[in-house]
This record gives sequence, structure tokens and C-alpha cells, in this order.
Amino acid sequence: MSAELLGRPPAVVSAGVEPLAAEVEAQGAPLERLAWRPPLDGAEEPLRRLIGRSTEIAAANDRAVGRMQAAQPLLVGVARAADVLPGVTERTILHSGPPLEWRDAAGPLRGAVIGALIYEDLADTPERAERLVAAGRVELSPCHEHAAVGPMAGVVSPSMPVWVVEDAAGGGRAHCTFNEGLGKVLRYGAYSQEVIERLRWMSDVMAPIMAAAVSEAIDLRAILSQALQMGDEGHNRHRAATALLIKQLLPALLTLDAASTDVAEVARFIAANDHTFLNLAMPAAKVMADAAGGVPGSTIVTTLSRNGTEFGVRVSGTGEAWFTGPAQPVEGLYFPGYAARDASLDIGDSAITETVGLGGFAMAAAPAIASFIGGTPDEALAATTQMYDIAWAESEHWLVPALGFRGTPVGIDCRAVCLSGTLPVINSGIAHREPGVGQIGAGVVHPPARPFVTALEALAARS
Amino acid sequence: MSAELLGRPPAVVSAGVEPLAAEVEAQGAPLERLAWRPPLDGAEEPLRRLIGRSTEIAAANDRAVGRMQAAQPLLVGVARAADVLPGVTERTILHSGPPLEWRDAAGPLRGAVIGALIYEDLADTPERAERLVAAGRVELSPCHEHAAVGPMAGVVSPSMPVWVVEDAAGGGRAHCTFNEGLGKVLRYGAYSQEVIERLRWMSDVMAPIMAAAVSEAIDLRAILSQALQMGDEGHNRHRAATALLIKQLLPALLTLDAASTDVAEVARFIAANDHTFLNLAMPAAKVMADAAGGVPGSTIVTTLSRNGTEFGVRVSGTGEAWFTGPAQPVEGLYFPGYAARDASLDIGDSAITETVGLGGFAMAAAPAIASFIGGTPDEALAATTQMYDIAWAESEHWLVPALGFRGTPVGIDCRAVCLSGTLPVINSGIAHREPGVGQIGAGVVHPPARPFVTALEALAARS
Repeated sequence: MSAELLGRPPAVVSAGVEPLAAEVEAQGAPLERLAWRPPLDGAEEPLRRLIGRSTEIAAANDRAVGRMQAAQPLLVGVARAADVLPGVTERTILHSGPPLEWRDAAGPLRGAVIGALIYEDLADTPERAERLVAAGRVELSPCHEHAAVGPMAGVVSPSMPVWVVEDAAGGGRAHCTFNEGLGKVLRYGAYSQEVIERLRWMSDVMAPIMAAAVSEAIDLRAILSQALQMGDEGHNRHRAATALLIKQLLPALLTLDAASTDVAEVARFIAANDHTFLNLAMPAAKVMADAAGGVPGSTIVTTLSRNGTEFGVRVSGTGEAWFTGPAQPVEGLYFPGYAARDASLDIGDSAITETVGLGGFAMAAAPAIASFIGGTPDEALAATTQMYDIAWAESEHWLVPALGFRGTPVGIDCRAVCLSGTLPVINSGIAHREPGVGQIGAGVVHPPARPFVTALEALAARS
Repeated sequence: MSAELLGRPPAVVSAGVEPLAAEVEAQGAPLERLAWRPPLDGAEEPLRRLIGRSTEIAAANDRAVGRMQAAQPLLVGVARAADVLPGVTERTILHSGPPLEWRDAAGPLRGAVIGALIYEDLADTPERAERLVAAGRVELSPCHEHAAVGPMAGVVSPSMPVWVVEDAAGGGRAHCTFNEGLGKVLRYGAYSQEVIERLRWMSDVMAPIMAAAVSEAIDLRAILSQALQMGDEGHNRHRAATALLIKQLLPALLTLDAASTDVAEVARFIAANDHTFLNLAMPAAKVMADAAGGVPGSTIVTTLSRNGTEFGVRVSGTGEAWFTGPAQPVEGLYFPGYAARDASLDIGDSAITETVGLGGFAMAAAPAIASFIGGTPDEALAATTQMYDIAWAESEHWLVPALGFRGTPVGIDCRAVCLSGTLPVINSGIAHREPGVGQIGAGVVHPPARPFVTALEALAARS
């Protein structure tokens, strides 16, 4: 729909920019008036300036989304973060979302950074860890700027093991830590002894076993594609994908040259955690999104990401530039004993899955997720359907059984968001606002409107 | 719907028995006229005789279906067939469907019996094997009469390993061989050297490893319940269930006291075969159906089964008696190079899954199966929806996301089949009509009408 809306003049008009609509009607072109919603505040001017470049933008968007769809993410190995992440030193701590000043950091992110410094033996108390960061003795930097992504707080420290994912088509790489399971975990800002010990077990025991188990490259796109036929949506639900991953790792696990009790413990850990695959879906999505980046003139979104304070958007035609606005509250269900007042704002790089047509964009594939986050299967269907309004294309890989195997909406067109006022829908966990607590719920969230408008202004400002 | 249709007088009428419909309308009861189809030939008389016993039958059916739903099939072990199957000697060969004379046996069943006799070293050529059976030197008997079920030809010979499934609620047991994979396999009537060697590997290598791996009981109902949220329908598609099974077996497999290359080979074999779980879904369904059996007065179907020549039906209120009619052709898609003229008629005990609300009754859960057998997702939805017309209840365990998590239709009421003329829909593979070839397609089939009418007559004849 968006291709028609925005690639060809008549349909641009139909979504609400009245002067242009009138012009089209005057020319006698067919015009279908949609349920009208005003464009985002401040978007009319840049939209108007871009309208003359529709043909050029359409070609750029076709190229960007074509590359996104052609990318073929493979899991190729496991490595120590500082050994493989570009620009990461022994004093770098990565976090989710756009760049951040420490004084602005939200509770879960603070907690995760504290935990990482204790884990790295750079501090022995939370207070000393905070002082270290405040004094600038460690560098905070976004995962996304170092070929990485992280769920929730997204903290990656130098000695953590990371999955290595490579795009077999374009060669790009992305990395992500192992998933720690639910409950008290670093990514939700918990840093108790139990959390630190689990992280050490992951690097000492799990990492070498997983490194050996990934003896052949594993096609993550194929697993996600199958999983969407099996009730996953590729962001909050990974039950099928995790089971399919284990099925692929099984023969290698069984012939590993390692203590069988360790192998069994690792297998039990990943089998008991349906979120294991989240940390593979994210770097898979990142190499796909990265492949779409840097196409001059393209209005396709290549990053959606939040640090608990700000929401950041990046767009293909403006390269590495961040456009930000305030992180929003997540609407959803809380675990017993918690309520909205306890919640952190939206946080995590995991919205990279929505960026490539998964998660909220694939909700129709996962009616079971709807009840997990407080909605109905019909709402799940409606969420996906609405996203076609702001997407440039339909996925060749993520097919939705409930939609007669139609591909999910893929490639968010920043113009379509601004024009329609329809914001991307993102599935998300909810973290406690204080450091050290953990996950307290799950739900749905929308980005703030502002980053899409400022991104559009930047696109319009380019020749 | 059937509960209303047949448990309470007004709705019995609405499906087409006109004299009764008129009576209900005369009494001023609400009457919704359904798309009218005549009752099955010869059914009006027994239906009429049963109408006065509606209350008693409703109570009996509630009890039968209640037991079916309460049954809790657990995988508890692996054993040698002749050691655990009641009434099976070293000279017994079990087959699918109702009892059969050798001279009437269809090609795939002949081929599988020949293969089993070669596998057992009871014959060294196909000709000698046939002579052995023709001379009555081995006894042919239905799986269903020996606490077993088998897909397609369903042949079980004395030394084959079988899964042991126990109903934790009622204590009943059912058994099934290991699934051999697709292509040239015994159950489709193939008996080449490759087939026999695979069977021997299954008993020599796979059976002891699987026996050790099932160190704790595995809840098959829970796996099926999850799998229906993951695109399986519990008969022709077991991709999710097989992956979930492997996830559960994984820790035990990793700590087995066996040669790791053997364990890896077994793991690779089951992981490469998405039908692995079919041979567990079937005995799981059988203990559920058996639990519903033998309730005096109940009109609930407890067996649907075919031997390639005849289709057999058993009903709760008539116990072990078989009601049979001619096996039907399967409508579906053929593999390249094959057509309807090459096909065997409907064969296999696997329709036990439909008997408990899976397979065709759960098609709406598995839109992907529709394309595999030549249909559309909408047709899959329609198939399940239509089956509510002939089912006594809705499953408490098999919930369909696409139907807003409504339970599948469960407990086929023989009266409703006769009254509505709606026959159960069964998903099935298609075997080549000649022995020794194998699977040539997959599709959908209906039973003949006659067994439901003769079953109803037998029910009506009981006081």
C-alpha cells in the first residue's frame, strides 16, 4: 500500500495532505480517501519538499528494502566481545538505544552497567561502579555503533561472550550476548550475586560449548521464517525458534569433546529459556537493517532503539545520524505485585526486529502473544494489518498463515509514518524503574512522533 | 453445537428430520434451520428409536467425552512388541484398520507384511513370505485389538521396538512403532533391503538409546497442546511437536551411557524426521479414545481406522464391535510422476487422531497443512468449523489460535453424523497401490457413510 501511496503521486495525497489531494482530484486521478488522520506536527513542510523527488525516493527505497530482504543472516560463531566488536576496548561498556549521558540513565540501564563493572572486576560495590562511570573512567557507547545489539538495557562488557552473526549476502556482521533467561537478569537491571555468577558461568562454561556446537553456519532467516509458521512473532515469543535452534545444534552437542555434565547443563539452560533465540533474532535483524542503510535518498527506517530515556531512530538516507525523542511508557500486563508506577520507560535494541518486519509487525502470526501482553487475537491481526500503511513492501521471508501467507509489512517508510500519523507498533518487556529489580511485565509501545519528523527534515534538507 | 443439537430435543430436529422439526415448532421451541442435508440412508429409523433416550445418551456421552478429555497420555518407555502387546506371540503380525482376510489385503499392507516377515527372518523372499501368510502359518490381527496403533499399513511384528504410552488418569496403555521417516518405508508397503536395514538399526541401536532417554515420563498431551499453538494439527504435521519432544529429551540424551556417535546418529535421525511425533500422537490419542470406550448407551465414536480395503468404526456404547464399509480414495496432491490411478485407498490407524479432535478436526490450527494437501487456509478453517456439527464437545486441551483459542471439536457423535450427513474429515498420506513402492502424496479423506448407520442400528437395538 505504501508503495502506491508514496511511490506514485495520487496516493501520496489520499492520506491527508489536503492541498495535494485537491491537485490530484483536479487532474482527474482516482483518489481513495482513507480514514483521515492529520500528518505529524511539523511534517507537512518536509513532506511537501520531498514530493518532487518521489521517483528518486522510490528507487532508493526499492534498493534499500531489496537489500534488507536479500540479506541472509547466518550464525557463524561465538567470540569474546572485545575481540570482535569494532571500537570496543577493555574500558568500553555498551548499552542499548541512542547515545546517553550517565546522569540521564534510567534505572535498569544504571543497574546493568553497575552489574557489568562488578562482573568485569572493575568495581567491587555498586557505589564504586557508579563513581567509575561518573568519573569518565569507563566509556559508555551505544551497541548499535559497535556492530552489536542488546535487549532491554543491552549492556555488553569487554569479556562477555557474544554470538557472531554474518550476512552471507553482503558480508555485514552483528553481535549479541547470550540470553540470560527471565526474572532477575542483568538486562533488566538486576545485579545481585546470582546474576553475576550466571554471567560468569555463561562465559566460562556455556561460551566454549556453544562455540564448539556452532560447527556449521546456522541459517537464522530460515529458522525465523519457519517460526512464524509456528506461532512466534520474532520479538517477544521465540518458543518455536528456540526449539528449532536446539534441533539444529543437537547432533553437534552430542559429539562435543567436552564434559557431558557441562554440555547437559548448557543444553538444559537453553532448552528451559524460550527467549534463547531473541538474542539471535536481534543480530539477524540488525544485519538485515544494516544492509538497507546508507542508500542516498532512501526514507526507509534502519534503526528503532531505546535506552530507557530516549527513543532513537535512524534512516537509510541519513546514514548514522540519530533522531531522538522521549522514551514512552509501555502499555501491557504487569506481573503480580507490580503496576504502571513501577515501570521503566521503553528500553532496548530489540525493536530492531520491528525494523525488519518482525515483532509487532508480525503480531498476526502469534495470537498467543496477544494474551501474554493483554490483548486479543483480533487485535494482533489488526496490529499487523495497520503496519502495511507505513511499510514500503511485504516480506519475502516472514509469511503469516492467518493472512493467507501474506508477507509481513517490511521497511518502514519515514514519510508514511509522518503522513499518516501511524506510529510503528513494538512488542516489549517492561523493566522495573529501579536498578536491581528486573522484569515486571510485557506489553506494546509506540515510539514518540518527533524523531520521524526530524529525520524527515534532515532528508528534505539533503539536496 | 452437537450438545444442543442432540442433548436437547429442539436442536436434534433442526438438522433435517422433518417430522420431529415440525413437532418442535408446534411446541414453540426456537428452531434454527441449518443448511439442509438429508440424514444418511437408513439412519432415520434408528435415529427415531434413539430419540426417546436422548437424556440417557447425553449423560453417557458426557461421561465418555469427559473421560476422553481427562485422560493424560504419558510416554513412559520403549519395549519389544511381543513383550508388552497383549495377545501377541512370535507368530503374530499386526496391521492397521479392522480385521482383514489376507486375500483382500491392499498392496501397501501386503508389502508391509512381507517386509515384516523378512525383517523377522521368518521368510527370505517376498514369495515365501506371502506363502507363509496364505498358509495361515502367521496370524494377522488388527493393532487396535492389541493395545497398539500403526500409521498407514501399521504393521507391527514381534521383535519391533514400540513406544509405551500410559494414561496417567485411567491407567490404559497403547503402543506404536518408531516412525521410519518419509519415502521408501515399511508403513507404505516398501520392503527393499534399505527398508529392512533401517528397521534393524531401529531395534538394535535406536531402541536402547530411546529407552534410556525416556528417563522420566513425558507428557504427550502437553506437547500436543503446545504444538497446536505452533502450527501443527496433530496428524499430518508434527514439526513443532517433534522439536518440543527433542527439547525434552535433550538433557537425557546428553548424559546417556552410550557411544556418543550412536546417540548422535539417533538424534540426527529423529531431528531430520518431522513425523517422529506422529507415532507418539497416535498412541496418545488411542489411550484417550480407549478411555471413552465401553460406556453403555454412549454414541461417541472411539475408533476410526482403515486397512486399505475397509474402513472400520467403533462406538463407545457397542464396545469392541467393528462397523465397516469400503475404504475411500484420498483427495489431495501427488508427488511428481504419480496420479490418482496409482493410489491405494485410505489406509492406517492414524485417524485415531481425528477421533480425539486432532488432525482434520484441528486443521484450522495448521494453515500450512492446507497447501501440503492441496487446499487453502480458508478451507482449513472451514474444515474445523464444520466438524463442530458432529462433535459432542470442545477440547479442553487443543485450542486453536485462529478461532480465538476455541477448543477443537471433540467426541464424534454417531447420531450427529447420521443426522447431518456430515462425515468426519481425515488428513492422510497416500500410499502407492502396489507393494514395495511407498508414499506418493497426501490429502483429505472421508469415511464411507455405512459404518455410522450400522453402528447406530446396533446402538438402537440395545435396550
